[in-house]
Amino acid sequence: MRLQIYGVEGLPEIAAGDDLARLISDAADLADGDVVVVTQKIVSKAENAMVAVDPDEPLSHKPVVERESVRVLRRRGDLVISETKHGFVCANAGVDRSNVAADRAAVLPDDPDRSAWRIRNGIRAKAGVDVGVIVSDTFGRPWRRGVTDVAIGSAGVRPILDLRGTSDASGRELQVTEVAIVDELAAAADVVMGKAENIPVAVIRGVNPAWLGPGSIQANVVRPPADDLFR
Amino acid sequence: MRLQIYGVEGLPEIAAGDDLARLISDAADLADGDVVVVTQKIVSKAENAMVAVDPDEPLSHKPVVERESVRVLRRRGDLVISETKHGFVCANAGVDRSNVAADRAAVLPDDPDRSAWRIRNGIRAKAGVDVGVIVSDTFGRPWRRGVTDVAIGSAGVRPILDLRGTSDASGRELQVTEVAIVDELAAAADVVMGKAENIPVAVIRGVNPAWLGPGSIQANVVRPPADDLFR
Repeated sequence: MRLQIYGVEGLPEIAAGDDLARLISDAADLADGDVVVVTQKIVSKAENAMVAVDPDEPLSHKPVVERESVRVLRRRGDLVISETKHGFVCANAGVDRSNVAADRAAVLPDDPDRSAWRIRNGIRAKAGVDVGVIVSDTFGRPWRRGVTDVAIGSAGVRPILDLRGTSDASGRELQVTEVAIVDELAAAADVVMGKAENIPVAVIRGVNPAWLGPGSIQANVVRPPADDLFR
Repeated sequence: MRLQIYGVEGLPEIAAGDDLARLISDAADLADGDVVVVTQKIVSKAENAMVAVDPDEPLSHKPVVERESVRVLRRRGDLVISETKHGFVCANAGVDRSNVAADRAAVLPDDPDRSAWRIRNGIRAKAGVDVGVIVSDTFGRPWRRGVTDVAIGSAGVRPILDLRGTSDASGRELQVTEVAIVDELAAAADVVMGKAENIPVAVIRGVNPAWLGPGSIQANVVRPPADDLFR
């Protein structure tokens, strides 16, 4: 398999009500089987998932963080690690003030899988191509420094590659059986997007066609609390 | 930025004492600035980081797991989540029986950063090119199903992209400041490697040259326990 990954340049600043599928179709030369990775920030902007905050007060988004949290896992100083209504565990419940107007904070889309579906369907309608869509966000993780991008919504990509029952090259059944390819694709896309360069969409070409198919982040990636050893 | 990622085909089965740098240089057409991602499994094989286990007993590697663990975080049934001497937190302390002989289990390399350095230096000596090297392994994570590849060793790649003090496109200082690009590159490489296909090396071309430089997983990625909210 050979992948090509590139950032989509030339997108305008996104505002509430913008048609992301049309804008992406116009800016990128998409083909059947491409996976289009769209950052949460522009999805939240297009869906107007924004709240007003005091631009002169660095902590004025903190009440929003509390409201967006269904359960707080850890607090240290101003930092809150909490679970959102979607089941994501992340810093500040995904509330973020970078790359938005000074008097606004972005919150996570209401249903990021549905956001991905709308973009996928819109691209099919506008450009006539069948692509997978991932909505990505930037999360920290325990035990390791730094953040990486993960998928918070997806459509048309199987989120988990299920290798249960397959054997390794020496005929032994694989121990590692469920690969979160949707998160690996989101991480790969972030390499070309950057945080400061305002490139909010990337295209991945060359993904195994067998990986395109049904599934969602809610159904397949969010770990049920009962199965989770760290909740 | 435009990335190309491909799996290196045609590598032989790796045995103790094999010169990975020579084998990779022979199998791949490398260029200055490429990032070469090598799976832990073949590094452990080449370094003979293997222990004998009873091939007829599915749990015969469990004493090895206990020995490789400096601290156990969670147990459930046969599953152990523990911290290794390197500071990695993962299932079974990284002990793994897939893609090895039935009477062997692979353990993590003694010093994966050093393993990466040896491969990087060897490739420079053999092929005359200056590449970054990442040793990758497959870890689960809390709160999300599925595994992804992360970096357990690196050389010649800055593991963390430090954006502290930089501004976003609207001039606001970025909140997300340290991106673990080394883990995003490891994840991207896994997309072309697969678990069952025995493609243990991938090449990433097109990485920002500014990201090539000093650093190591031990020094830059493993989070000191005092800074960790989940240990």
